[in-house]
Amino acid sequence: MANVHLPKGMRDLLPPAMRRRLHVIDTVRRVFSTFGFEPLETPAMERIDTLLGKYGEEGDKLVFKVLKRGEGAKRGETDLALRYDLTVPLARVMAMNPSLPLPFRRYQVEPVWRADRPQRGRFRQFHQCDVDIVGTTSPQAEAECIAVVHASLKALGFEGFIIRMNDRRILRLMAAAVGASDLEVSMLTALDKLDKIGRDGVIADMLRRGLTAEQADGVFAMLDGAPVPGAEEAEANLARIVALATELGVDPARLQIDRTLARGLDYYTGPVFETILPEGNIGSISGGGRYDGLIGMFSGRDVPAVGISLGLERIIVLMEERGMFPNVDTAVDVYVTVFDEERRGPSLAAAHALRDAGQRVEVSYAAGKLGKQFKKANQRGAHWVVTIGPDEHAAGTLQLKDMRSGDRLTLPLSEAVTRITDQS
Amino acid sequence: MANVHLPKGMRDLLPPAMRRRLHVIDTVRRVFSTFGFEPLETPAMERIDTLLGKYGEEGDKLVFKVLKRGEGAKRGETDLALRYDLTVPLARVMAMNPSLPLPFRRYQVEPVWRADRPQRGRFRQFHQCDVDIVGTTSPQAEAECIAVVHASLKALGFEGFIIRMNDRRILRLMAAAVGASDLEVSMLTALDKLDKIGRDGVIADMLRRGLTAEQADGVFAMLDGAPVPGAEEAEANLARIVALATELGVDPARLQIDRTLARGLDYYTGPVFETILPEGNIGSISGGGRYDGLIGMFSGRDVPAVGISLGLERIIVLMEERGMFPNVDTAVDVYVTVFDEERRGPSLAAAHALRDAGQRVEVSYAAGKLGKQFKKANQRGAHWVVTIGPDEHAAGTLQLKDMRSGDRLTLPLSEAVTRITDQS
Repeated sequence: MANVHLPKGMRDLLPPAMRRRLHVIDTVRRVFSTFGFEPLETPAMERIDTLLGKYGEEGDKLVFKVLKRGEGAKRGETDLALRYDLTVPLARVMAMNPSLPLPFRRYQVEPVWRADRPQRGRFRQFHQCDVDIVGTTSPQAEAECIAVVHASLKALGFEGFIIRMNDRRILRLMAAAVGASDLEVSMLTALDKLDKIGRDGVIADMLRRGLTAEQADGVFAMLDGAPVPGAEEAEANLARIVALATELGVDPARLQIDRTLARGLDYYTGPVFETILPEGNIGSISGGGRYDGLIGMFSGRDVPAVGISLGLERIIVLMEERGMFPNVDTAVDVYVTVFDEERRGPSLAAAHALRDAGQRVEVSYAAGKLGKQFKKANQRGAHWVVTIGPDEHAAGTLQLKDMRSGDRLTLPLSEAVTRITDQS
Repeated sequence: MANVHLPKGMRDLLPPAMRRRLHVIDTVRRVFSTFGFEPLETPAMERIDTLLGKYGEEGDKLVFKVLKRGEGAKRGETDLALRYDLTVPLARVMAMNPSLPLPFRRYQVEPVWRADRPQRGRFRQFHQCDVDIVGTTSPQAEAECIAVVHASLKALGFEGFIIRMNDRRILRLMAAAVGASDLEVSMLTALDKLDKIGRDGVIADMLRRGLTAEQADGVFAMLDGAPVPGAEEAEANLARIVALATELGVDPARLQIDRTLARGLDYYTGPVFETILPEGNIGSISGGGRYDGLIGMFSGRDVPAVGISLGLERIIVLMEERGMFPNVDTAVDVYVTVFDEERRGPSLAAAHALRDAGQRVEVSYAAGKLGKQFKKANQRGAHWVVTIGPDEHAAGTLQLKDMRSGDRLTLPLSEAVTRITDQS
């Protein structure tokens, strides 16, 4: 084995993995486009001062920093860094392009880099898949975020997912209602663990964090349905989002208002949502919400925004585990054998006609030993094998084998093209 | 303006630029797939010792180096670097995956990073677009490289391009024939400038580099058609490549054997090719050849390989200049107005039906002031505008305006969907 290695926590995506990944990316890009979201790409690197200080002290440590180049650079001096997410670059784009017409509705499917401790299924380079609407406070924007996730997951073949919704303002009002506004973050931190540690665990955690038993009880009374004082507007807004999302084709049975949903402690300012698959305890496969304070971080202007992120890497793993990928083992549709060197020309011409018709075609480099060539065709997952021997060559025909049924037919090239394209 | 900047020599790709780029990438990926080439992705970063020493002293200076992380890292210590091309990563993949079945035929369309001095049209992050066949010496591989470039350029709408071909071994034999084997690199360096400085310029350069006038004359006699001793095999191989490429659909009028073609001084060991557009002096838009010594650099095994690279960035610029992009100003196909808040629901339902049929649809956030909404539809390049007012709402219809012809029709949603999809 050669003395050469991948960087720690990184991986190559060999063709079978790449075929799956491209299937997912192409599918979601197509769905995003039907919603009028537009593609954006930003450079992998940002200036180091653009990134640092945006992800907390722990986040800053995970940023890959790039050494300054050229004669003037001091030893160890860094000026660039690899992006850590796609949101800070979006905020930079909005600040640098003040004439972009608002609302700006973009998607971005690109890798980000984080020097996390490597663990199974977590990599230091991974794709984020973000859809954001910048410049409107309309609840239609929330409904579109929910609908685009719904349509994307359906297009990928997911069934039975649930989109949970809440509003961060309601959680804030709950804290206020029990006189614990100063402990709001503690309350959220505890609540965020509800799925993992259960109700009793959360209450114990709340007490540990300084809430009284009465306050904890008050919070759970509201979670159980008691009215939250002052929350009428946020609740009406959630109901409006549900109604609009339903018009946009979302199955209302998949929407669940969940007063415990907090989506972490970070930058959300209004509605939040996440998508879960009830079977298996695998966490969320999509999350997002309104974050009206973030996009203006560089411009100093107030810029409302709402967005949603698809958990692309987790989705790919789940689809693999559940056998949701069509044709994953098929590298080519048609394998063209080469009977002998004299027949290489017509074999290539047959390949050309099939490619022109959109088929994925591979032609053997070796000539003769057809058994070996058929074995190769099998390895490549080809549905069809084309062979032109001396008889077919003389007659202007070819032999077509359907590798699934085992059927063999002799027919002219044009008919073979029609037969193959009709069945694909 | 906000105090925030892009890294020097890098750029954002805003939606209009991204639409063009994705059109090109999707088109070539589709063509590559029909040839049975398979997708590969490698991480943006490689270990620094994998990259350094592979691109010469000048190249090494242009590599972006990444600071080592964590407690143990010494000040200024680097362990990773951003990839400089896609060939060294391919060599690493081949060395680390010795069980990959050969021939391995892959494409890779991904960014690379070089800290070049920024200049107009040259960026420090740019996409490379490579197709390579590893593990066969068959001339069919060269023919496939030529045919896949031919098919890609045709699919993008290019006409009149010329694919020039030569064999590095013939150039080596020419140097030997005039007794200048020790000056082969000097001869190639001079010849490489033929397009720029002409025949007299090349001869002067050869003399300056130590060839005698007789040797220079001898080289040009062979370039003009005199036989090159010992070149029969390489010439027959070129003729064979032309014949096979022709079977693969390449127009033979586009193929030109050019004995002066050297393709730089680097790693090619056999046939070389490049694609030029005769009009305008814009350099090549594709280049490649056989490089049997490179892929084995990490494995220590001999691994034959041939590949071709499409000049994606140059192709995009040319297509823009020549107006070769379809629908570049169209962000969406259909713009759905919102007559008033009461009509938002049915307007969203209409958008949903159109999206389900594959149309790219945007719905106004604002309600009322239809003139403003039509202006927005125009800015977005929408072909169609859908409006549901009180009359249409009551009648279960909608108003459809064709923005190109100005025609307006009132019809049921299902008929509007059919009419719009039929015309797209």
